[in-house]
Amino acid sequence: MSISVYDQTIGVMSRMLLNLDAIIGKAEAYAEQDKIDPNVLLQARLYPTMLNLIAQVRIATDIGKGAAARLSGSEVPVWEDKEVTFADLHARIGQALDYFAGFKPEQFDGAEERAISLKIGGQALEFTGQSYVLGFVLPNFYFHVTTAYNILRHNGLDIGKRDFLGAR
Amino acid sequence: MSISVYDQTIGVMSRMLLNLDAIIGKAEAYAEQDKIDPNVLLQARLYPTMLNLIAQVRIATDIGKGAAARLSGSEVPVWEDKEVTFADLHARIGQALDYFAGFKPEQFDGAEERAISLKIGGQALEFTGQSYVLGFVLPNFYFHVTTAYNILRHNGLDIGKRDFLGAR
Repeated sequence: MSISVYDQTIGVMSRMLLNLDAIIGKAEAYAEQDKIDPNVLLQARLYPTMLNLIAQVRIATDIGKGAAARLSGSEVPVWEDKEVTFADLHARIGQALDYFAGFKPEQFDGAEERAISLKIGGQALEFTGQSYVLGFVLPNFYFHVTTAYNILRHNGLDIGKRDFLGAR
Repeated sequence: MSISVYDQTIGVMSRMLLNLDAIIGKAEAYAEQDKIDPNVLLQARLYPTMLNLIAQVRIATDIGKGAAARLSGSEVPVWEDKEVTFADLHARIGQALDYFAGFKPEQFDGAEERAISLKIGGQALEFTGQSYVLGFVLPNFYFHVTTAYNILRHNGLDIGKRDFLGAR
């Protein structure tokens, strides 16, 4: 029994990215209504050595596409990183959601035992599917979605935990 | 096969709370070294309507104890909320880790199908074990651990993703 890798990754990340897309939509409306230059929000970061909003969204979707591909034994697609506007962020999230939608649950059967290797900053990391999901994919994914939320909250966007969790 | 509820909750939250404890230790050392009043960090928040560092740690551990208890069919313990100092935060995290350590994996067999009810702000929420873990426990837990990290990063603490993810 327990919970399938598909539900833990594709299911969870699809829902969270839909929530993030709605939050990005609220940020866009906030900028328009309060006559804030959109770049003020898009380029906002919580500290000079942290990444800005655009990068948080980009990395959250990258973690997602990497997880979907590697756990199903597919090739990780290359997506150009050229997001500049709110519309680009919606498109990036849409691209991830479309990519997720192309997978079937059975492609993840046995994924928890799959050997997974990746290189991060020149360092080779070796995982099993389970250690990759629990120790890399989900903490990283949640980190970047939460940080996107925190950047916008810190800049006065009126959102709450309900926007983060979304509808059940 | 797939991944057990125990590994997804107790396993993940134990590791993440150990990482958080180390981050709190670094914050404490940073305050001492730079002669910052510890309360400046402990009471820091990212926006006036967001919760401070103490509350982020408290809620992360609360989500953890609630998950451990409900998913194993145990009574949710009541912990007094009286944390004021860094030492108190270490103790709170230690309390959660000790509580987790008292559970055996087999107490979570079939937990994904358990009916789980909770009240949040007077609203009754009904879950299955699976929807509780994926749609409530993990997003909330990661939200508060990430926000604790972001509060400290925003206040100049020199930590990075490696502190958040911890050793594998």
